[in-house]
Amino acid sequence: MSVALDVRDQGAADALAAIESQVAELKQKIEAMEPIPENKLSMIVFSGELDKLLAAMIIATGAAAMGMKVVLFFTFWGTAALRKPDARVGGKDFMSKMFGWMLPKGRNKVKLSKMNMAGMGTAMLKGLMKKKNAPSLDQLFEIAGQLGVEIKVCEMSMDLMGFKREEIIDYPNIEYVGVATFLAHSATSKNQLFL
Amino acid sequence: MSVALDVRDQGAADALAAIESQVAELKQKIEAMEPIPENKLSMIVFSGELDKLLAAMIIATGAAAMGMKVVLFFTFWGTAALRKPDARVGGKDFMSKMFGWMLPKGRNKVKLSKMNMAGMGTAMLKGLMKKKNAPSLDQLFEIAGQLGVEIKVCEMSMDLMGFKREEIIDYPNIEYVGVATFLAHSATSKNQLFL
Amino acid sequence: MSVALDVRDQGAADALAAIESQVAELKQKIEAMEPIPENKLSMIVFSGELDKLLAAMIIATGAAAMGMKVVLFFTFWGTAALRKPDARVGGKDFMSKMFGWMLPKGRNKVKLSKMNMAGMGTAMLKGLMKKKNAPSLDQLFEIAGQLGVEIKVCEMSMDLMGFKREEIIDYPNIEYVGVATFLAHSATSKNQLFL
Repeated sequence: MSVALDVRDQGAADALAAIESQVAELKQKIEAMEPIPENKLSMIVFSGELDKLLAAMIIATGAAAMGMKVVLFFTFWGTAALRKPDARVGGKDFMSKMFGWMLPKGRNKVKLSKMNMAGMGTAMLKGLMKKKNAPSLDQLFEIAGQLGVEIKVCEMSMDLMGFKREEIIDYPNIEYVGVATFLAHSATSKNQLFL
Repeated sequence: MSVALDVRDQGAADALAAIESQVAELKQKIEAMEPIPENKLSMIVFSGELDKLLAAMIIATGAAAMGMKVVLFFTFWGTAALRKPDARVGGKDFMSKMFGWMLPKGRNKVKLSKMNMAGMGTAMLKGLMKKKNAPSLDQLFEIAGQLGVEIKVCEMSMDLMGFKREEIIDYPNIEYVGVATFLAHSATSKNQLFL
Repeated sequence: MSVALDVRDQGAADALAAIESQVAELKQKIEAMEPIPENKLSMIVFSGELDKLLAAMIIATGAAAMGMKVVLFFTFWGTAALRKPDARVGGKDFMSKMFGWMLPKGRNKVKLSKMNMAGMGTAMLKGLMKKKNAPSLDQLFEIAGQLGVEIKVCEMSMDLMGFKREEIIDYPNIEYVGVATFLAHSATSKNQLFL
């Protein structure tokens, strides 16, 4: 009996050694890809045109509905789409006033990236979306907020464009961050997009 | 002898416990990133301009040739690039007719995203590509089909633009899907791009 | 005693079998995602406009500063941004001369993707960036070089635009590659972006 046991032990020791080397190999592979991507989508909303914003919000809400964590980083032209339509903010210098006046006042003032045709293309698309019951930007932002889509606003862009926090829309969990903070999100996300 | 065996067993038990905790740790890391990304590239073909389409198809065929699974999601302006050049489809309402008339009739009618210069830039580039034996869009779609690159067409965009399936090119495995279907692909893909 | 030992052995064998099946499962999951993504960001710099270039270089230097490996692939319009401002290269054919004359001579000649307004928007932004002490493109390329950000230039684009290597900026580790080389990088990168 003790002999039989011995043989079994030897088998166990071999099996153990084999599995140890397999685990070490898997560990190495996983370490090569640290930080481990999470089930998260990070999107850079850069262009801020009507069509790109629609795409961003449709993707964001769709991914959130599927159970992904979604983080949107509004930067450059994208920040203008986050402005309140009617905010009047004082104390701006000349350049900031200029930018404020030239850039669209919020998501309902942005134009198509092409075929705008002096506003006709944009109006046509909006009309069609209404007719076909496609969700508007207003509705998509509402849904995004409910689904926990996080909005981060690029502080550097806010500063460059001369936007103040008072003129940015109310949104649950909106946060003003630097590029490093966004990159930390992005680096641990399984999916990234730049729009 | 039974004592020696006992010691060895104790060592085995310890080793087993050690490896169990390592495996549990790896499992946790992998679970944090579920669904596990596959060796797959998902690309959103949104803009549909000549230069962006060329980039999309060169990347798609290149990745497929390297053994990656490739899924292209044609949406918004991208859908117009999938139209047959000569399709005449009846029964469209006024707005759909307008869009159909304004948007490019297929991949050989799309323009550059910049430097189009009333068509001269686009013509120059096409001429150069021919001269340098760079593959044309026609050839790239042909190769993509042969390499098993999958094309998914955004149903919402088709509906918005008023495009009908009869006016879309013949392509192996072309499929009409909603955003959710594409996102399910994208979420499990190692690589994603938005063009 | 030998009976007690036997029981313990049986337990060890069961535990071993259990852990073997767990390891096999993890292995399968990891194999499904080979090649394993590395802690690397691959970016396709396609558009080459001032705003997109700034975004690309801010993201690249930020990611590199966080310890990620960063590979930039300059292609299409992006290649023009890599030209030296003052290079005079002879021996070009007519079309190459035309492109060389029409396309921006380096990163300090590129324009905004929108709101350029005959150069006024671009000048305004550059003025603002200086005033706010935001890093210029010159500084960002300098930092990128120091942080080991790799620049790969698309050979096909160089050939199409008729650019010669003598007119491309000096940069540490700059390399001229085909699409396949870039895709090999991209396929093993955790993060990819197309700008």
